[in-house]
Amino acid sequence: MMPPSACSFQVLSISSDCDARRAVLRTSHGTVQLPAFMPVGTQGTVKGLTVDLVRGTGAEMVLGNTYHLALRPGAEIVDELGGLHRFMGWDGPILTDSGGFQVFSLERLTKVDDRAAVFRSHVDGRILTLSPERAVEIQELLRSDIAMVLDHVVPLPAAPATVRDACERTVAWAERCRQAASREDQGLFAIIQGGLDAGLRRWCAARLVELDFPGYAVGGLSVGETPAEMYAVLDVTCPLLPTHRPRYLMGVGRPEDILESVRRGIDLFDCVLPTRNGRNALAFTDNGPLRLRNQIHRRDPRPLEPDCPCSACRHSRGYLHHLFKANEMLGPILLSIHNLNYYQRLMADIREAIETDRFLDLFQRKMAGWRLTRGGERC
Amino acid sequence: MMPPSACSFQVLSISSDCDARRAVLRTSHGTVQLPAFMPVGTQGTVKGLTVDLVRGTGAEMVLGNTYHLALRPGAEIVDELGGLHRFMGWDGPILTDSGGFQVFSLERLTKVDDRAAVFRSHVDGRILTLSPERAVEIQELLRSDIAMVLDHVVPLPAAPATVRDACERTVAWAERCRQAASREDQGLFAIIQGGLDAGLRRWCAARLVELDFPGYAVGGLSVGETPAEMYAVLDVTCPLLPTHRPRYLMGVGRPEDILESVRRGIDLFDCVLPTRNGRNALAFTDNGPLRLRNQIHRRDPRPLEPDCPCSACRHSRGYLHHLFKANEMLGPILLSIHNLNYYQRLMADIREAIETDRFLDLFQRKMAGWRLTRGGERC
Repeated sequence: MMPPSACSFQVLSISSDCDARRAVLRTSHGTVQLPAFMPVGTQGTVKGLTVDLVRGTGAEMVLGNTYHLALRPGAEIVDELGGLHRFMGWDGPILTDSGGFQVFSLERLTKVDDRAAVFRSHVDGRILTLSPERAVEIQELLRSDIAMVLDHVVPLPAAPATVRDACERTVAWAERCRQAASREDQGLFAIIQGGLDAGLRRWCAARLVELDFPGYAVGGLSVGETPAEMYAVLDVTCPLLPTHRPRYLMGVGRPEDILESVRRGIDLFDCVLPTRNGRNALAFTDNGPLRLRNQIHRRDPRPLEPDCPCSACRHSRGYLHHLFKANEMLGPILLSIHNLNYYQRLMADIREAIETDRFLDLFQRKMAGWRLTRGGERC
Repeated sequence: MMPPSACSFQVLSISSDCDARRAVLRTSHGTVQLPAFMPVGTQGTVKGLTVDLVRGTGAEMVLGNTYHLALRPGAEIVDELGGLHRFMGWDGPILTDSGGFQVFSLERLTKVDDRAAVFRSHVDGRILTLSPERAVEIQELLRSDIAMVLDHVVPLPAAPATVRDACERTVAWAERCRQAASREDQGLFAIIQGGLDAGLRRWCAARLVELDFPGYAVGGLSVGETPAEMYAVLDVTCPLLPTHRPRYLMGVGRPEDILESVRRGIDLFDCVLPTRNGRNALAFTDNGPLRLRNQIHRRDPRPLEPDCPCSACRHSRGYLHHLFKANEMLGPILLSIHNLNYYQRLMADIREAIETDRFLDLFQRKMAGWRLTRGGERC
């Protein structure tokens, strides 16, 4: 049984005109100011960045991945080498996902029954069996600060029976994960499933809230649905989650998704977009994305953004364009740095806006800069 | 005509028992402690490292490449974007090579006559004509602190007539480069050619010394000859170079080559080995190289070297092994950092050893650590 003391959460303020909240999460490896964005370190590294560079972007917490680390190098080796913090050299908080997302993303290599998810390794074809108990055991070997229950993620759209089956299994597995958890220094978060079915989402949230987890994630999103469908799920789910527990929207997302979700009461995010897009020469800016491979940047002396303090923005767009045209590693590195900086600055702006109760002002300003309008949703 | 004030050189001390010398080179962008090693930034970036990371290895001066930058993005664009320092964000001294090495390395794409070297671009097939005058013009547009004369490098072994022809052309081109040079803030170094022919090396050195350049490079080495042949060329050439001018051994080399060359009076080096080998999972250490892809490192908790301050050495060998097995960019990045650190620490040790007149002690100790013995050469 995991003790409730492994991590603690405190709401500092709530917006007067929406559900955005300013909060803080305390873990064994330090404190995270919320709302927060976690860079993704799938295989024990945020792709292309030293931990000093990751820290330099403003990130306080990173995400590691149970499935990938269990396959390579193996959870037992990470444990032998001192746990994931020591292994990757990150001394701040780490959250590990449970492998449930790979049931979706590696669907063709996976079989799920009530006992476990069975994967055929995408690396070498070996079999990896992730039961709820093994998912917890791996995360305890990794020694992350926050572990996630093993959930069953299905691609959307899906048949109602498929979504219901996966949702019920997720609840049963959450209880088994809770029973299996033994580390006093690790918090275990539950994951709400239920696809786009409001009734199932409500049912799942109610069951998991009864079990009183130290945190709740909204899972099974960013798997094929539209943004409006995703926001609708948050509209249904967030009000059912206890206000005194952190809320984590898994695998999301674009800057506009983060604003839309914070507005609905989400505290925590992770996504590969800033690093993956960075590697593909796309830079996020307050005026929308820049594609650095475009010839238009060839002679442009301006930085990506005039006020950005990141090391990419000490260079001209012309230089960054050159790096991508010349296939230099530094192009992906610098754009990953910039994009992670961009996300962290967005989160800092969000936190400050909530503190001064001007979140919706920020929301409108950012959306206008990105040239996005909100389609008929409450504001 | 280039003024002699563009860079200045001063010998601080010379070993009592060999020709190793401690010196300093002053340029428009700062001072370089010699003997020094320059990381190679061929295309306007030391591969895989931000300029802060390069600076963090201890490097004071970097090398840029005329041929590659002239092709992409083009010297005029670098000039338009503020020159190479500003373009790549490196505010310390920069030396640019002249493109002469590419006459060798891209031999199949090159035709040389007395007028110029004509390249068919390895990027897009366009023609690039490098005359001595254009090589200087490009380097003046790049605004490097030290420019190199255009030389004619031939692969070894080569027919005597080929070596003689290239050597005579190199002398004629050096004089034309000198006439073409116009920047007051850029020093122009001459390059001694002559293959393995002691007589030609002597002739070339004498002709170029008559022209009184502010620095001299030994070129045309590391192009197919044995280490012993290379050292023999240095034995012939170095004594003919003026003691009050810096001596630069181009494109060399392995740590043992650096020690052997410093012992013979060389002050300055550049080589792609630390970064290229780093990208290929080879780490330099005082006990010889480590190949990080080897399974032997899988569970090894030790750093590459116990006393190395670099960011790679905050990790275990097991972690570095994992990064290469998982094809993570951070593997090449961290090993490039370590290897550049290793080279810079070697140079710092060399400088300190010369200052205290214990260079040959250092020489023996390092060679013993690398398990190398010197084959019958003077010591």
